[in-house]
Amino acid sequence: MASISPVLSLLALLNFVCIVFAFDVSPLQDFCVADSTGKALCKDPSTVTPNDFFRSGLHLPGNTSNPYGAAVVTASAATVPGLNGLGLTFMRADLAPNGFFPPHFHSRATELVVVLEGSMEIGFITSYPSYKYYSKILGQGDVFVVPVGLVHNVRNLAKGNSVALVAFNSQNPGITNLPNGLFAAQPEIDTVYLSKAFQLDVNIIKELQKKF
Amino acid sequence: MASISPVLSLLALLNFVCIVFAFDVSPLQDFCVADSTGKALCKDPSTVTPNDFFRSGLHLPGNTSNPYGAAVVTASAATVPGLNGLGLTFMRADLAPNGFFPPHFHSRATELVVVLEGSMEIGFITSYPSYKYYSKILGQGDVFVVPVGLVHNVRNLAKGNSVALVAFNSQNPGITNLPNGLFAAQPEIDTVYLSKAFQLDVNIIKELQKKF
Amino acid sequence: MASISPVLSLLALLNFVCIVFAFDVSPLQDFCVADSTGKALCKDPSTVTPNDFFRSGLHLPGNTSNPYGAAVVTASAATVPGLNGLGLTFMRADLAPNGFFPPHFHSRATELVVVLEGSMEIGFITSYPSYKYYSKILGQGDVFVVPVGLVHNVRNLAKGNSVALVAFNSQNPGITNLPNGLFAAQPEIDTVYLSKAFQLDVNIIKELQKKF
Amino acid sequence: MASISPVLSLLALLNFVCIVFAFDVSPLQDFCVADSTGKALCKDPSTVTPNDFFRSGLHLPGNTSNPYGAAVVTASAATVPGLNGLGLTFMRADLAPNGFFPPHFHSRATELVVVLEGSMEIGFITSYPSYKYYSKILGQGDVFVVPVGLVHNVRNLAKGNSVALVAFNSQNPGITNLPNGLFAAQPEIDTVYLSKAFQLDVNIIKELQKKF
Amino acid sequence: MASISPVLSLLALLNFVCIVFAFDVSPLQDFCVADSTGKALCKDPSTVTPNDFFRSGLHLPGNTSNPYGAAVVTASAATVPGLNGLGLTFMRADLAPNGFFPPHFHSRATELVVVLEGSMEIGFITSYPSYKYYSKILGQGDVFVVPVGLVHNVRNLAKGNSVALVAFNSQNPGITNLPNGLFAAQPEIDTVYLSKAFQLDVNIIKELQKKF
Amino acid sequence: MASISPVLSLLALLNFVCIVFAFDVSPLQDFCVADSTGKALCKDPSTVTPNDFFRSGLHLPGNTSNPYGAAVVTASAATVPGLNGLGLTFMRADLAPNGFFPPHFHSRATELVVVLEGSMEIGFITSYPSYKYYSKILGQGDVFVVPVGLVHNVRNLAKGNSVALVAFNSQNPGITNLPNGLFAAQPEIDTVYLSKAFQLDVNIIKELQKKF
Repeated sequence: MASISPVLSLLALLNFVCIVFAFDVSPLQDFCVADSTGKALCKDPSTVTPNDFFRSGLHLPGNTSNPYGAAVVTASAATVPGLNGLGLTFMRADLAPNGFFPPHFHSRATELVVVLEGSMEIGFITSYPSYKYYSKILGQGDVFVVPVGLVHNVRNLAKGNSVALVAFNSQNPGITNLPNGLFAAQPEIDTVYLSKAFQLDVNIIKELQKKF
Repeated sequence: MASISPVLSLLALLNFVCIVFAFDVSPLQDFCVADSTGKALCKDPSTVTPNDFFRSGLHLPGNTSNPYGAAVVTASAATVPGLNGLGLTFMRADLAPNGFFPPHFHSRATELVVVLEGSMEIGFITSYPSYKYYSKILGQGDVFVVPVGLVHNVRNLAKGNSVALVAFNSQNPGITNLPNGLFAAQPEIDTVYLSKAFQLDVNIIKELQKKF
Repeated sequence: MASISPVLSLLALLNFVCIVFAFDVSPLQDFCVADSTGKALCKDPSTVTPNDFFRSGLHLPGNTSNPYGAAVVTASAATVPGLNGLGLTFMRADLAPNGFFPPHFHSRATELVVVLEGSMEIGFITSYPSYKYYSKILGQGDVFVVPVGLVHNVRNLAKGNSVALVAFNSQNPGITNLPNGLFAAQPEIDTVYLSKAFQLDVNIIKELQKKF
Repeated sequence: MASISPVLSLLALLNFVCIVFAFDVSPLQDFCVADSTGKALCKDPSTVTPNDFFRSGLHLPGNTSNPYGAAVVTASAATVPGLNGLGLTFMRADLAPNGFFPPHFHSRATELVVVLEGSMEIGFITSYPSYKYYSKILGQGDVFVVPVGLVHNVRNLAKGNSVALVAFNSQNPGITNLPNGLFAAQPEIDTVYLSKAFQLDVNIIKELQKKF
Repeated sequence: MASISPVLSLLALLNFVCIVFAFDVSPLQDFCVADSTGKALCKDPSTVTPNDFFRSGLHLPGNTSNPYGAAVVTASAATVPGLNGLGLTFMRADLAPNGFFPPHFHSRATELVVVLEGSMEIGFITSYPSYKYYSKILGQGDVFVVPVGLVHNVRNLAKGNSVALVAFNSQNPGITNLPNGLFAAQPEIDTVYLSKAFQLDVNIIKELQKKF
Repeated sequence: MASISPVLSLLALLNFVCIVFAFDVSPLQDFCVADSTGKALCKDPSTVTPNDFFRSGLHLPGNTSNPYGAAVVTASAATVPGLNGLGLTFMRADLAPNGFFPPHFHSRATELVVVLEGSMEIGFITSYPSYKYYSKILGQGDVFVVPVGLVHNVRNLAKGNSVALVAFNSQNPGITNLPNGLFAAQPEIDTVYLSKAFQLDVNIIKELQKKF
């Protein structure tokens, strides 16, 4: 810690001040492994094994043979029961050439992305009234953060596949895809309403409601 | 957002600074009235008056002379400085005949609605993969809750005006309107990407980007 | 609290169990509708209906034929099961001429009031050692905030009825009325102690313990 | 609260500013020692010393020569700056023979009491509508917990002094004494209102407003 | 951990289940007394008694006839069921002449110490990269705070016994003793690895793994 | 969502029940980019750029030419200012052949690891009194979780380099290495005390204090 320049040292202090009142929350036990038998909220600790904190397979690409050319493989509390209550999820995202994720948002997690392979554009839109679009083209080793609750989009820019690893600070970030959620909703949302909201002809809305 | 006077803009910044680390959990003081002078995070308690906890005017309808036939009047930390850090907002919503709010979501608050006059439909869509639509037609005195982060829509069903009072459990719920946010984003989101995501012709997307 | 039927009493217990670990912060699911059967903490999502997020009747005055000339009608997790875990409560408050609410505090919620009809005085007292009283006379459309945990009072100033709508940022704000709670406590608090604390004659305390 | 010197008053303000956004949850730094100079929210870590985490004197009785026969000595963030943001307070409570603390509540902390000397009764009252009184007579080494936000009372039962050590899980628990707060409030609460709420003659209320 | 009777083991599990989702933030009920029968998360409030909030015996020294010359007696949710969910623990710590607590940390609580008798040194070490040691020699009535998650050490400096009272802002602070935890871990941590990490001969590590 | 088997459906319900009361926390703004000039807590939003949410270089190995054969490259609020207040950190960890991280813990974050290359053993030790060691040998694509506050160790098992990507749910997880922190502490911890705690000769302790 010796001989830091005064400027750096000032910077360090200011950073210290800036972040000191943000906080996290933590559980009251070392862990609470989700009990799949449903007899208790958590497994009896004496039956917990290392495998409860483990899963394999994030090196394998997901199947992108779908209209989006996109796939995800997830390590969350659903597949790693030891993550229960600890507030973290990993997701491997694969994008085939021209693949993309539709605009979407996570209401319960910030997202941190690192590109492992290829190149992709990622961007998020701030909330009303600014609607400012912050985006970057990411290559291998590039990192980008999407603040919690903001709509964002991702598309592959590489000629081949692109792969990213994503971390969320929730065990269940939640996801609503747009426009998918609106047009796939069941029962259907009123067509005339959607027509007015989107400023599109009613027939176009009806088609969208069939497609999604 | 163009051409705000420098004074107002500074004020906006200071407000931003002041509340950014507050969370919707109980504070460590009786209150922390936002300090509009920017000299401190909170006003000196000896200068706080009852008016800091007060605003008038929620009995007056907002101006619905706009394409949405909709208006809101808000009592939040921005207009009631004593609300700062206390996690509540009131909003009066007016809808002219045929008026509506476009689909939108609040990433930082649950919403509780009570209809004061008229009749309106309100519904929310659960997140992926269920996309289930829960909606009700509300009359006078009816209450409906929209869980935090879920997309919802509201439209007037009365022949005359409808009025609702809405509570949010945040001093800054955040709002992203759909499709508005996507098509109004600046810089623009890639048109071809939006065309694929919406499964609509590129020219329709371009029109939408002009309209919003 | 006497003579509740066993069924109701079981129900009450289950509700108690169900919400006791919820906090006024965003949950990890879209919602967790309180399960009134007690078989689970939350209802199976496939059985949730729009009515779980709904209640009617807040346009109807409560019955103010009581010594306080006051009544409340509440939309909380107890009456709107979909509110469970989402941290909001609505309350309609009616005050007959000369009606009032005794001094009280809510230890788990800030309160935001808007007057719909009539005129009322509302004020809160800061904590020790300042004991400063912040009060306003509110008319129609006026809003006032009472910070969490502070003692406050409300009284009708109109010749006719007054009506307010109140929002709390908790599904169970808690309420302790003063002096009611002290004198109604069972078993009774020591009379001599209360006499000294209130600097009132022991006989006056005894009368108060009979009245409340 | 009158005639505090300007310097002290400034200091008080700065402390107010400094801790107002801290919450009783773990911080993002090892510690954030309150900065008494007001130049920053926290002291530059390089200037922090062991004394910032220290205070002496909790073995010395407070001065109980007052109408309550009661005194407190506190180790909180105000006297131990290293406690800032860490959510704990110690308080030594002394009660002379016949001494007592008036009924009061802390809206921001649960209280844990251990009796070091003598004997005292302590009890708390649950909130509306149950108003159940839970009390115990404590002797040396006895522990009792008062849940956050509940009204409680304490009185000495020993022939000599009694001493207790109290822990709160907040750096600023807040305290409202009853009936003191109500009758000492400035400006005064309406006398007729208090008379009705307490079901006591207006003249008795006026006397109480003079006494407190 | 060997040979616990099945009944106790079941009880332990139920306690585990009961508190696992509680956090150190205010609950939504006045209290949630841990239900030792396991039929519910909390006891039926109508069966709660003052004894649920009580324990005796903190005036009695623990048994320090062990290699550490140290003992603790605890009032936590495990021994005071009414503390469940309320985020506080008391601990009486006794140190015989030359007694000490090995270096350790609590990952879920800040610790506040007051010395009741004797004299002890207490110190904590900040995290990487500073590793700064803040320590004080405490006498009677002296208070010291150890921020959450920092390694600290305590040793008796008095010729006789020393006694401290400690408060934690969690109902289950958690404790990992060092080096104990590392060398007592079962299954054993790889010896060569530990040898390299400690820069000690493998045989010394093997001895340590036998001792602890 | 049609035709899920009853078994899966039951499982889904149980998972739903199990995690519904865990929670995360979110800020009151879309983001608060750390202001490096120190003039404000957060940068004026109008000056924020996409680069504030970005960093490059996580594809490049760190320099493992050190006694540990280990290196880390981090994307946290310190290097990605837009992460400020959002509770996430990424870390790339490189281990040369025979490389390792000494036992350590993070008091402010759970850790989620995915191996990108090679093979490594990772394990954590539960807290007192169980000290149970949960470990796994991880290959490419394997994921392991280390609960917040638990001591854990990592060592390379591959003949070549191993690489992992780690996510923490805090912007400043904190790290204390063991035994490093104890022996590197300045001022030094009492040598005789450490000798007794480690059950090692005083001269060995003195050597350790020189080495670290």
